[in-house]
Amino acid sequence: MTAALERLRRELGDQIDTRPESLRATRGDKSGHSSLGDPLAVVHARSVEDVQKTLRIAYDSHTPVVVRGAGTGLAGAANAGPGEIVLSMLGMDRILEVRPDDLLAVVEPGIINADLNEALRAYGLWWAPDPASRAISTVGGNIATGAGGLLCAKYGVVRDAVLGVDLVLADSRLISLGHRSVKGVTGLDLTSLVIGSEGTLGVVVGATLKLRRLVPGETVTLTASFDGVRHAAAAASAITAAGIQPSIMELMDAACLAAVHDLLDLPAPRAGTAQLTIQTDGPAAQAEADAIAVIIGHAAGEVTIAADEVQGEHLLRVRRSMHPAMERLGTTLIEDVSVPRSAMPAMFDEIARIEREYAISIPTVCHAGDGNLHPNFIFEGDTVPDLIWEAAGELFRASLALGGTLTGEHGIGILKSRWLADELGDDQWQLQRDIVRVFDPRGILNPGKVFAP
Amino acid sequence: MTAALERLRRELGDQIDTRPESLRATRGDKSGHSSLGDPLAVVHARSVEDVQKTLRIAYDSHTPVVVRGAGTGLAGAANAGPGEIVLSMLGMDRILEVRPDDLLAVVEPGIINADLNEALRAYGLWWAPDPASRAISTVGGNIATGAGGLLCAKYGVVRDAVLGVDLVLADSRLISLGHRSVKGVTGLDLTSLVIGSEGTLGVVVGATLKLRRLVPGETVTLTASFDGVRHAAAAASAITAAGIQPSIMELMDAACLAAVHDLLDLPAPRAGTAQLTIQTDGPAAQAEADAIAVIIGHAAGEVTIAADEVQGEHLLRVRRSMHPAMERLGTTLIEDVSVPRSAMPAMFDEIARIEREYAISIPTVCHAGDGNLHPNFIFEGDTVPDLIWEAAGELFRASLALGGTLTGEHGIGILKSRWLADELGDDQWQLQRDIVRVFDPRGILNPGKVFAP
Repeated sequence: MTAALERLRRELGDQIDTRPESLRATRGDKSGHSSLGDPLAVVHARSVEDVQKTLRIAYDSHTPVVVRGAGTGLAGAANAGPGEIVLSMLGMDRILEVRPDDLLAVVEPGIINADLNEALRAYGLWWAPDPASRAISTVGGNIATGAGGLLCAKYGVVRDAVLGVDLVLADSRLISLGHRSVKGVTGLDLTSLVIGSEGTLGVVVGATLKLRRLVPGETVTLTASFDGVRHAAAAASAITAAGIQPSIMELMDAACLAAVHDLLDLPAPRAGTAQLTIQTDGPAAQAEADAIAVIIGHAAGEVTIAADEVQGEHLLRVRRSMHPAMERLGTTLIEDVSVPRSAMPAMFDEIARIEREYAISIPTVCHAGDGNLHPNFIFEGDTVPDLIWEAAGELFRASLALGGTLTGEHGIGILKSRWLADELGDDQWQLQRDIVRVFDPRGILNPGKVFAP
Repeated sequence: MTAALERLRRELGDQIDTRPESLRATRGDKSGHSSLGDPLAVVHARSVEDVQKTLRIAYDSHTPVVVRGAGTGLAGAANAGPGEIVLSMLGMDRILEVRPDDLLAVVEPGIINADLNEALRAYGLWWAPDPASRAISTVGGNIATGAGGLLCAKYGVVRDAVLGVDLVLADSRLISLGHRSVKGVTGLDLTSLVIGSEGTLGVVVGATLKLRRLVPGETVTLTASFDGVRHAAAAASAITAAGIQPSIMELMDAACLAAVHDLLDLPAPRAGTAQLTIQTDGPAAQAEADAIAVIIGHAAGEVTIAADEVQGEHLLRVRRSMHPAMERLGTTLIEDVSVPRSAMPAMFDEIARIEREYAISIPTVCHAGDGNLHPNFIFEGDTVPDLIWEAAGELFRASLALGGTLTGEHGIGILKSRWLADELGDDQWQLQRDIVRVFDPRGILNPGKVFAP
């Protein structure tokens, strides 16, 4: 270990950071989970060559490497522990190229999602992936986790928005995956393989992003209140089934809504009230909002349509205050199952069952346009109690039984690796593990994450 | 070999076909290329179990397996030769499930693309991938090649339209990849890896397809004539740059247009005339067509807007008659490079240069909305002459130099494998090859294709 650190210092000089506060900061992420001790060092990479040098040293010395962006992950995938080198990509944050005619941009991985979109606005363009962390998370991190967001049902997931990536392999070689053209089927699609691979296949040092033109026209925001979460979920399904595609359709169950109203000093909602927050965009935004209001009326919901974008922001504020509201209830384990849209009501039934059986509270918010639920398991203290993990395991099994998945957009990381084989099956688990070994024969890239034994 | 054939007969009875005409039919595809001799046998699979039995026998006996759909490929990927077992998926053509509420369908791989879409129409749904072969090609073949089509720029490629696949591995084990939900980031994205893998990773025995609702409203078709292909390409770029997204935007160069007019007994176009054929769809179809007409006017093009869908079909007929028109000029090698949209004019310049330097004719049609060009190399006789391959090699190098790719939608197969490393680089070529070996350690799946040494 010491030899590796010495070589890092020799070759990368003041980019090697071993200050206690720097090391400590890399042990955790937004999941609340922390590793058991400080890593060896943080390398502040400023160039592809820095990354290659670091990997060369790590490879030669069999030292584990944890690649890290802004640390906003929710599954512990970028949490670093004893004996590990942290490779921080935050210093590689340049936009290298914007091509409005080809609707693409080439960027370094450390750029913050919102900063990129701010720069793209001048070109009338945007990059669609919009995780809730977009103001503070990096594009590289979004790619590494396959991060989702509120707009995915209408505008796609990360996999739909990346044309290629440059990857430094475990042994420090640099390869370019993907292409700059709209179409391309040359060889295996390794770009898609890297998206969501959570630091196990290589280090993304550049990305060619597929952009969209800014959506013309206004946005219209509305909320709808229902007597119970099941009615709200059914109304969301009815909207989708009618062929209307809102840009945003968020569902908050009664516990969420009550907690937010309390946080914001709003009048308490009627007991059991669940709420949909919906936004339409584009030239037909108003017509779609009106059509949605009719469907909600049939579903016995109470609608409020914002008169303008200011009032729209006011309505959205309730949804955006979810996380601070949850934090006031206790410590939270934010979960992330995703089911086929038609299974949403059944999934809410399962959550209610788990709440009863385990005598716990699981306020749940849901991206209702795409069936991605975020149940918030509330507990006391810093460490997730075994009972909560048992309840979470029950949630995962329920999601799989309904044709769903363990994680819609947060990833497996360290927190869900023990359930991975339940979804993949043992044969596929081993196959995926063997593919990782092709990229990383010495097992130095994020060991113990995702495919932990 | 005989032992493997005997075991196939014993276990699969009359599903084993060794009639000379059946064997001969599997040696070629629509590329015109044929293998050097008949394969061992054709297995007509009717179930997943049939596929597993076949792979078990092939694996035990180290016998190569070539998976085949309708044989409409353009790169020889499904061409079978001596000593190989052909696994025909045409008998597995059922639609197992259609879920309008979840916008998905589960199908067997042998279903014809157009038949699937005919069935989906009753639900108000469609599957977007629309290769030119859609009336005769299978969904499994579309997935295996990552086939494109005319609508990709607006409605996406195959990779955007498949949620999951069931895969029989080389050793006969069955695994399920992907998910039924809109979002899902559990483990590595092996579904995307299988799409476009051309029979090298396993046998796709089922697919969960992501569907779209039928687009409401009319379609509007228009053509525009230009004095030269460069002006036509520039006009296409101007349309895209204006933020208008036609569903179809096809470009025919002067040689193509003249050949089609000759075939259809239409008046000969003015010498050098190139043509765009454009279709808009959806509620704004007419407004978009009008806006396109203005842009074309600025680009000195002559516009014809169809008054109705009947006249629209009439205009589209010219583009649809490309292949029969080419066949009258001689034998054709249909190529398939794809470049960033802004590089289309430069790519046409390169094609003109190659025509001059090699003294050959390369009539070219282009999906101008996405930068995918199909240069048709014309020659005499049954076998592609070396000179034509040299010229094609020059074309591929030109495409790569412009930031493009070897193949936008046809695949590598046997015909382009010698250029694969030029695009991937040696390191990535070897990495991809090693990944294939994880799936197929004995090298029995489509050997000699894609990653031919």
